[in-house]
Amino acid sequence: MLVSPFPTLRDDLIAAFIVSVLLIPQSLAYALLAGLPPQAGLYASLLPLLAYAALGSSPVMGIGPVAIVALMVSQAIADAPAGANPHAVALVLAAEVGLLLALAAWWRLDALAALLSVPVLHGFETGAALSIALSQLPVLLGAAAQGSNLPRVLASWADAPTPWWPLTALYGAAALAALWLLRRHAVRWLSRHMPAARATLLARFAPLMVLAIAMAVAAASGAGARGVALVGELPALGESWATPPLDARLWWHLLPSAALIALVTFVSSLVVAESLGRRQGTRIVPRRELAGLAAANVAASLGSGMPVAGSFTRSVVNLDAGARSRMAGVFTAFVMALAIVLLARPLAVLPNAVLAATIIVAVLSVLDWRPFREAWRYARPEWVLMAAVCALTVLHGVAWALALGVVGSIALLLQRTARPHVALIGRVPGTEHFRNVDRHEVELVPEVLALRIDESLLFTNARQLSDVVLQHLAQFPGTRRVVLQMSPVNHIDFSGLAALRALHDMLAGRGIRLDLSEVKGPVLDGLRMGGWRGWFAGDLYLSHHQAMRGESPVTPVV
Amino acid sequence: MLVSPFPTLRDDLIAAFIVSVLLIPQSLAYALLAGLPPQAGLYASLLPLLAYAALGSSPVMGIGPVAIVALMVSQAIADAPAGANPHAVALVLAAEVGLLLALAAWWRLDALAALLSVPVLHGFETGAALSIALSQLPVLLGAAAQGSNLPRVLASWADAPTPWWPLTALYGAAALAALWLLRRHAVRWLSRHMPAARATLLARFAPLMVLAIAMAVAAASGAGARGVALVGELPALGESWATPPLDARLWWHLLPSAALIALVTFVSSLVVAESLGRRQGTRIVPRRELAGLAAANVAASLGSGMPVAGSFTRSVVNLDAGARSRMAGVFTAFVMALAIVLLARPLAVLPNAVLAATIIVAVLSVLDWRPFREAWRYARPEWVLMAAVCALTVLHGVAWALALGVVGSIALLLQRTARPHVALIGRVPGTEHFRNVDRHEVELVPEVLALRIDESLLFTNARQLSDVVLQHLAQFPGTRRVVLQMSPVNHIDFSGLAALRALHDMLAGRGIRLDLSEVKGPVLDGLRMGGWRGWFAGDLYLSHHQAMRGESPVTPVV
Repeated sequence: MLVSPFPTLRDDLIAAFIVSVLLIPQSLAYALLAGLPPQAGLYASLLPLLAYAALGSSPVMGIGPVAIVALMVSQAIADAPAGANPHAVALVLAAEVGLLLALAAWWRLDALAALLSVPVLHGFETGAALSIALSQLPVLLGAAAQGSNLPRVLASWADAPTPWWPLTALYGAAALAALWLLRRHAVRWLSRHMPAARATLLARFAPLMVLAIAMAVAAASGAGARGVALVGELPALGESWATPPLDARLWWHLLPSAALIALVTFVSSLVVAESLGRRQGTRIVPRRELAGLAAANVAASLGSGMPVAGSFTRSVVNLDAGARSRMAGVFTAFVMALAIVLLARPLAVLPNAVLAATIIVAVLSVLDWRPFREAWRYARPEWVLMAAVCALTVLHGVAWALALGVVGSIALLLQRTARPHVALIGRVPGTEHFRNVDRHEVELVPEVLALRIDESLLFTNARQLSDVVLQHLAQFPGTRRVVLQMSPVNHIDFSGLAALRALHDMLAGRGIRLDLSEVKGPVLDGLRMGGWRGWFAGDLYLSHHQAMRGESPVTPVV
Repeated sequence: MLVSPFPTLRDDLIAAFIVSVLLIPQSLAYALLAGLPPQAGLYASLLPLLAYAALGSSPVMGIGPVAIVALMVSQAIADAPAGANPHAVALVLAAEVGLLLALAAWWRLDALAALLSVPVLHGFETGAALSIALSQLPVLLGAAAQGSNLPRVLASWADAPTPWWPLTALYGAAALAALWLLRRHAVRWLSRHMPAARATLLARFAPLMVLAIAMAVAAASGAGARGVALVGELPALGESWATPPLDARLWWHLLPSAALIALVTFVSSLVVAESLGRRQGTRIVPRRELAGLAAANVAASLGSGMPVAGSFTRSVVNLDAGARSRMAGVFTAFVMALAIVLLARPLAVLPNAVLAATIIVAVLSVLDWRPFREAWRYARPEWVLMAAVCALTVLHGVAWALALGVVGSIALLLQRTARPHVALIGRVPGTEHFRNVDRHEVELVPEVLALRIDESLLFTNARQLSDVVLQHLAQFPGTRRVVLQMSPVNHIDFSGLAALRALHDMLAGRGIRLDLSEVKGPVLDGLRMGGWRGWFAGDLYLSHHQAMRGESPVTPVV
């Protein structure tokens, strides 16, 4: 066994090498996807990693260019004012994303992550993966077409002077097939000859091998001269350094796109950090994630990169490769800097079609239709939302899809709270427990109507409270007392308080007493602050059982 | 005692006369407030009453011009395309409001009423009352200024050629004082000389007397010739009949205003109908209210009127005067038609300042600051929302204020569900009831962590579920079993389901068992539909008591 005075650092260094193997092609590919020069992706894999390591909270987060953000950047570039330089747009976006995330960290807006529900996020990620694959199809086949949603790609392709270029398509198809087969079978093939752990490790180098072979073939056959689009000469490190232009009109124009990118960056990175954090047992602090991502994006902007986020694939690789602290990210940055210097020449002859194949394999292999099936069974309206967000992402763009998703999630929530389930409850024989008469064999008490309204009393449902009780009273005309079991009532807002008072007064007008049981502590605190004893004449019982037995109420006054 | 074969109809007829006494000056005044010719208000008190009687559900609803809607119409007129005739704008608005309400009735959108919470509605009504009073101040004082929010009134007043006109101001001030004193003291003065019921009835004629005296004085002294603005000659019934112009651009331009007016019309009328319905014991069907209000507004549009709604004042008067069926509304329409024919000449000499005084007294006398005090004590964030909506209504206008109100209510609801209260619970000695350890003397079971999370499991809070449980686990390191009491969980949405699964897997990874107690029927149905037994290895207990005693679970499978 190898002994080292810094075992953590050694593990981090090994992880950094393995992650870099993945990061080099992805950096180039996502810059291509965003419509940027290839060095934008490479530079976005240097300083941002150091910045995140300084402020973030996840030890394994793989910061850098990611596919979804690259897609959003490409759409922002397409909608930018005519004549705006694409890389300038990307740098302004990165700066704005960084500043917005910093503001969010400062104002403690990490709860905004909740705006993207699971169905919305999944529908969006699926739609984005499809859009990304679609946008790379022309590159893969050598067509002079582009676009980041289905109608644009089709329209551009219809107008393209060259619908495909056979030699380019050959590179693309071969790379696609090789990458796909290696991804599916490499580990299994290798494990026949070596231990599983080593096979897994070695398999990670498979994509880099494909790229190396493609570069060798392209260089040997002079592919560039035969019309195959290549990555091209990379500028020497630092030579093409660019900073965001200080053009107020451009900044203002890009602000909405930046806000969306910031939201997606934060939520998607947080999901990665939290799911790996649960696996590792490390605690993720959302506010520190905001700070880390903010710093990373500001660094990307000043460092001639493009907007960055946490990559799920690279974070998992980082974790599996044994990264133990955020130093792994620091080392990755240094490995990347070294790689840029050493690999600049060979990368120049890499066909873009091979990079496109890398992207397509990466995004399609994480496609997951299970949540669609699960949502279909569990919650049809949420399935509809998921499918609509997915379709809108493919057919139109990210902005409208996300807006629909947020508004739709909120609408579903409002609708849920607006139509509460109401149960007439009775005692389960032999216990002190009360349940719905329609579902359980229970005992009722004559002249007492015991109801459980399964929702907080909120403005969305407040208006119905009296109606609901009246409907039940109509079935039990002899009722002299109504007892509401308040265990499902988690909040009573001002509208709910007014409704409770209206119910109390309506019942009092009919000579019926209103009592409450199992009011939760925080709800009761609120009622007391509101001076409810000024109008509430009923009693309050600790448990519903006590209320039904007519035991003396626990808190008769206050 | 007078005996009649139709006692209901007789009561309705009497109520119709009494309501008309109030409706005549209000119709004129609210037309003036909206910036329309006086007959628009009178005509809006004819056909719409018949239309509502045909389709609405409240027997006492006083349909016709109302102050808040008149204010909204005046703002829509101010923002209409230059050159648009004010009455044409009002007719288009009425048509659109009617059609939108009809659509809402058809699509069963009556739940949209929930969008306006009590604080928003009250803040809006208070702000509108202040704006209305403010907009009538120049009329009262004879200033050539106008506007329906504070900045516009002030700007218009600063530019006005005549900042006030002494004789007009004299009429205005005298009418204001007389109306205010009569409103506060007339019943008391009259009850010294007659039974209280008759005094109340007679006091309703007091405002009409003030108007009559003002008309007599103005006619005798030739006030018109001395520069006092008068209502002016009313056209003969039917002579100035107008219908909404079929100008697509105008209809499109006014649609947003019409949507807001429709929402306010529906909610404010529903509040009136429901609060009086509770008093009377009649059931109000929101969808029929939508239909009745839709018909009334279409009738107002075709009948040369202005948008109409249910008036709280007139509905209360209707109820107190003994109206027993919707025939009261039909009779009121006929009384109004008669009054228009008979009173057209005398009304022509009524000074506008006296009408302004009527409006100011009407809106200021329903001002109610109690909800502000109550909200301050009960729910500070809702007080802030109420105050902001009120201030924005006065300072800017109705549209932004209502938009802020709706968005603010939803934001508060999201915030509430996002940060649930979590209680560690134990048994109240001698009972089967479990409560918060921080608030009650309770008994705990070693190695078992029993938690109650006071909120549905929703996308707004799903992400925190595991974190919350982990924090409690950190305090009880020896825990071998976690029991969640699910009584506060009214829904589990798709994000909540994912969170529950993540929690289950995380606990399983630590060798801790997760059990659930008191899962509600509808929630359990959902879990079963989602096939949760595929991953959930814990048990389900009917009551938390059984879960803690380790009794055999009630539903071990499915």
